[in-house]
Amino acid sequence: MIKAGIIGSTGYAGQELMRLLMQHPECQPQVITSKTYKNNKYENVYGNFMNITSLECIEDEIDKLANDTDVLFIALPHGIASNKISESILSKTKVIDLGADFRIKDVSTYEDWYSVAHGNPNLLKNSVYGLCELNRDKIKRSNLIGNPGCYTTCSILSLTPLLKENIIDISSIIVDAKSGVSGAGRSLNLGTHYTECNESIKAYKIASHRHTPEIEQELSNVANSKVTISFTPHLVPMNRGILITAYANLNGKYTYNNIKEIYNKYYRDEQFIRLLPEGIYPETRWVKGSNYCDINFAIDKRTGRIIIIGAIDNLIKGAAGQAVQNMNIMFGFEESTGLNMIPGFPM
Amino acid sequence: MIKAGIIGSTGYAGQELMRLLMQHPECQPQVITSKTYKNNKYENVYGNFMNITSLECIEDEIDKLANDTDVLFIALPHGIASNKISESILSKTKVIDLGADFRIKDVSTYEDWYSVAHGNPNLLKNSVYGLCELNRDKIKRSNLIGNPGCYTTCSILSLTPLLKENIIDISSIIVDAKSGVSGAGRSLNLGTHYTECNESIKAYKIASHRHTPEIEQELSNVANSKVTISFTPHLVPMNRGILITAYANLNGKYTYNNIKEIYNKYYRDEQFIRLLPEGIYPETRWVKGSNYCDINFAIDKRTGRIIIIGAIDNLIKGAAGQAVQNMNIMFGFEESTGLNMIPGFPM
Amino acid sequence: MIKAGIIGSTGYAGQELMRLLMQHPECQPQVITSKTYKNNKYENVYGNFMNITSLECIEDEIDKLANDTDVLFIALPHGIASNKISESILSKTKVIDLGADFRIKDVSTYEDWYSVAHGNPNLLKNSVYGLCELNRDKIKRSNLIGNPGCYTTCSILSLTPLLKENIIDISSIIVDAKSGVSGAGRSLNLGTHYTECNESIKAYKIASHRHTPEIEQELSNVANSKVTISFTPHLVPMNRGILITAYANLNGKYTYNNIKEIYNKYYRDEQFIRLLPEGIYPETRWVKGSNYCDINFAIDKRTGRIIIIGAIDNLIKGAAGQAVQNMNIMFGFEESTGLNMIPGFPM
Amino acid sequence: MIKAGIIGSTGYAGQELMRLLMQHPECQPQVITSKTYKNNKYENVYGNFMNITSLECIEDEIDKLANDTDVLFIALPHGIASNKISESILSKTKVIDLGADFRIKDVSTYEDWYSVAHGNPNLLKNSVYGLCELNRDKIKRSNLIGNPGCYTTCSILSLTPLLKENIIDISSIIVDAKSGVSGAGRSLNLGTHYTECNESIKAYKIASHRHTPEIEQELSNVANSKVTISFTPHLVPMNRGILITAYANLNGKYTYNNIKEIYNKYYRDEQFIRLLPEGIYPETRWVKGSNYCDINFAIDKRTGRIIIIGAIDNLIKGAAGQAVQNMNIMFGFEESTGLNMIPGFPM
Repeated sequence: MIKAGIIGSTGYAGQELMRLLMQHPECQPQVITSKTYKNNKYENVYGNFMNITSLECIEDEIDKLANDTDVLFIALPHGIASNKISESILSKTKVIDLGADFRIKDVSTYEDWYSVAHGNPNLLKNSVYGLCELNRDKIKRSNLIGNPGCYTTCSILSLTPLLKENIIDISSIIVDAKSGVSGAGRSLNLGTHYTECNESIKAYKIASHRHTPEIEQELSNVANSKVTISFTPHLVPMNRGILITAYANLNGKYTYNNIKEIYNKYYRDEQFIRLLPEGIYPETRWVKGSNYCDINFAIDKRTGRIIIIGAIDNLIKGAAGQAVQNMNIMFGFEESTGLNMIPGFPM
Repeated sequence: MIKAGIIGSTGYAGQELMRLLMQHPECQPQVITSKTYKNNKYENVYGNFMNITSLECIEDEIDKLANDTDVLFIALPHGIASNKISESILSKTKVIDLGADFRIKDVSTYEDWYSVAHGNPNLLKNSVYGLCELNRDKIKRSNLIGNPGCYTTCSILSLTPLLKENIIDISSIIVDAKSGVSGAGRSLNLGTHYTECNESIKAYKIASHRHTPEIEQELSNVANSKVTISFTPHLVPMNRGILITAYANLNGKYTYNNIKEIYNKYYRDEQFIRLLPEGIYPETRWVKGSNYCDINFAIDKRTGRIIIIGAIDNLIKGAAGQAVQNMNIMFGFEESTGLNMIPGFPM
Repeated sequence: MIKAGIIGSTGYAGQELMRLLMQHPECQPQVITSKTYKNNKYENVYGNFMNITSLECIEDEIDKLANDTDVLFIALPHGIASNKISESILSKTKVIDLGADFRIKDVSTYEDWYSVAHGNPNLLKNSVYGLCELNRDKIKRSNLIGNPGCYTTCSILSLTPLLKENIIDISSIIVDAKSGVSGAGRSLNLGTHYTECNESIKAYKIASHRHTPEIEQELSNVANSKVTISFTPHLVPMNRGILITAYANLNGKYTYNNIKEIYNKYYRDEQFIRLLPEGIYPETRWVKGSNYCDINFAIDKRTGRIIIIGAIDNLIKGAAGQAVQNMNIMFGFEESTGLNMIPGFPM
Repeated sequence: MIKAGIIGSTGYAGQELMRLLMQHPECQPQVITSKTYKNNKYENVYGNFMNITSLECIEDEIDKLANDTDVLFIALPHGIASNKISESILSKTKVIDLGADFRIKDVSTYEDWYSVAHGNPNLLKNSVYGLCELNRDKIKRSNLIGNPGCYTTCSILSLTPLLKENIIDISSIIVDAKSGVSGAGRSLNLGTHYTECNESIKAYKIASHRHTPEIEQELSNVANSKVTISFTPHLVPMNRGILITAYANLNGKYTYNNIKEIYNKYYRDEQFIRLLPEGIYPETRWVKGSNYCDINFAIDKRTGRIIIIGAIDNLIKGAAGQAVQNMNIMFGFEESTGLNMIPGFPM
């Protein structure tokens, strides 16, 4: 039984991590921190934990936390983790950062998009981008993981096989993404006040969302060529779920089956990727509460495009679930340990 | 590993049962039936099961099912189970009926409220009302369980201690109940068409809902006196959850703590009942996805009333979860086996 | 064309007032104030007004406002209006206060429930409780209206005929009320953050909600006897609407038609009260976007109770619509002027 | 006062038409038909009309209807209207068809996409595509209008100025569209059962939705060149509203202001099109309950694309409101008569 700490346990990602870890057979959350809810019992912050845990939120003292744990999950806004983590910390505990600080390899790209100086660029060469299905081997050997963003996970997994096999025009990629409101976190904001976002849909951060460079970095790696995409996120009136609808021009004529073989080649053995049968497309309801990423695509013959649909639960495969999957890989547990939840319906 | 069958596996209760049983360490769903989806793969009926099960829905032949299983769950509309089940069936398998046929002990009451003849009144003397917390010992020795309704479970658990200790006027009980839409099932109906019930609330079956006599039967047993209640269900635009707000006149002057002691007396050791701290009331979000029943109350000094609030997940503690809890008791498993889900939030 | 001012124009009630007044043929909103959005164009505060109004929010200077308008609507939190309004102000303009300060006639009751000193108790003897259907004549002659609360309007209208005719036990009244989230206003609050209240229902302020004494005051007037009630509000995941489910013991045996006659007696000629046909109960969807109050009831023969259901749009008949109705009465306009909207569906 | 008939008055578009026409100062709905609800009072079909209309649904006899009305609105599934309407009917009354039969000018395109024979291709040369802002003059002179689809209206209005001025690559247009559930109508369907579509988003009819050829036809007219697009509709868990996010490659370098001038050129004087200020994008909540189409765009410099966002209320500007706007044009009424509703919020 390994010991885990969660820094920033009272945001939605932190809370989902708490829920998953408390049900994990090989790991126990030992210490949890919160700035806002310091010295509060966790069950008073999240009523679902009533009678389930007696843990209390403490202030975070990173050195002590590093000493007391085998793994530290960090679920804080960007710009903080990179100032907390150091070689010394990493010599004592493994770190899985759910924020952006260790995702972007290029410091200037990070600083451009996030408008903040990176706290410790030296660590970037050792950190691994924790998209489990793509970087499993590196993750296994790493002690510092940049856990991918929610939009990012869904977009990269949906597009990777096409880029690996070079069958789409990499200058033509558009990702139109839709997210449930939990993606915006628990901080109060007029835009996520119930009556302001219920019964409405909007696009936001058009051509400027911070997950864009992250998607481009990974797709460029996969394509061995610089990929630039258009990425438009939308806020959908539902608690959870991300759906991405991606568009790209095909480099030639392909049948559905041709391309399905490509997806099979890369994902056939992935337990958390489900390639749906022809004509059945991902819907967020079918992955809710699980670590699955559902994928399918259609060929739009009239325009020569492929349209790819992907769906995940943003708080699980898009955050806490993938963090646990990374932990499983890092510690040599069976990769699906504690993650075998069947999606709940209707949830 | 025991073998289970689910008759009526494609309604929402059947589906939730399927989900819980597939994740149960001591039980495997072996055979599932469906009239509507006969010969369909289950994953095509419910996309959340994609790649998770290869089971196919078959037509139900009760004798064969009884031979092939250790326990049969029946999730059908009322009036069918009582015609399927016989002493002979019960000699081969245990039966947990999620419908109404074996809940009401008095045949004429059943027939009055359900407007259908009971198929096998003889079985009623051996059947047990499967409200686990109240009838645990009888359930252990039974092979035919009438699994309680959703409104019923929440109402009875919330009120029982007060009746046991005779501190309320039993002629004054009112239960104002609120349910999510999944309680209405998967059958198409204008009232549960999205645009007809979204963004609206209504009362329905006022003074005539069929869960009324079931609540009255059990409360009368508890009170050792005939209890008649007013019960008003409401349809709330959300997928899951039941909240009941119950009102009764107190027989004397009591403090919150006096009455809390009474609740503690009966529920202190119940792992699925959470008595919330003073001033914190149940909300359906805190039990969603779990087998918990949360309860608390307030004393309305100005009127001499007690107001009791209870909350459950209608498909779990109000249906499939309680059915599994009954199975655990009947087979001597640890009662919480397969039911330890922490409520999911925000779900 | 009369000139109106709205003090507190950027809360939800203020905004709805703005919308109704801009569409009113006899009145024009001339000046609007806002503390939070001072010096902002209204269309930037509420995007629905884009290109529709060029009005800007100003700081409120009550004397100037009184001079410049024929009627002032005040939509502020309690405790402010009573410090702003004076005889001098009332000599210049008529005032319709949507807050609580002029609703409760008994100062000590007001101060007990609101925990604030009343700013000008002298004005209370001249102010009129603006429930149009009950106090039409007094409203006509008044220049200071305490516009009723949302829960209150629906509760009082639903119960009044029963109390007028003395057919229920006035010590037995329970009002179980359900409200959409807009009732909580636009101020940020964790409880009305989308992901915190979506897909859940809860009771709140049990036995302590401030609309209780207001309902009791008016019902006591109607009954000519002190009425004390139990009142439980609930938060429902929808934007708009209030449904109340009220319970009372009947003083004798009555048929549905007996009691329907009583309702007809009082409401037959009311254009904003719709008495539904037997067996059809109010649902909030059918009044959304309108000034209607729908009412019906059932007799629960088994318990001797009457169960009354009422529904309104909380921002219209429960706030801005009723305020306009009061204005129409005060200025001698046809009472329904600017209020003839057919409810929108599905909205 | 002209007399209107509504054929198919009990679908959602028919109902919204009924609501708008009953509030229209120059037109009265005189006769309404319904196959499903024949001989039912309208207020019993739609509770919002309770006490508001005594009209009853009758069976449709097209000749009698034509004789008795000045204008006939048809809100039926495709394939029916073209069999009902003839030169003879059109000699007696004007027809505005909200279905697809008179929208597509090319019979074979219609028959390909709708898989049904067109009932009266001869009429197509006289029918006018009723997108008011584009075809106002032709509408004025016509007596047969094909009222545009909901997705279509929003897509065409959002894209037209770009095509008029030839600033985008017409082979690069992608429209990613999102609709509320009322777009699917009132017919029962598992996909629009509350618990099946609530809290989830999905794409549907990918590369095969029937509004595609309609958008292409009009954009081709505007561009004077054959336009082929990719169109992907999505179902969003909300009652009303359409948002479209469109992508196209710019033919050169343009600033926001360059392109804004183009939009201004075409839409400056349009009272139902609102061009939002830079950086503020359409959201469906700001048009709900109104006839507005809100439009804005961003330039994605990194990719050379323009991203255009448009929003409408699908039942108003996307159906009934535009039908009334067409009627106003045809009869010489002020174009906005009966359509000046300020969007309601929060609705």
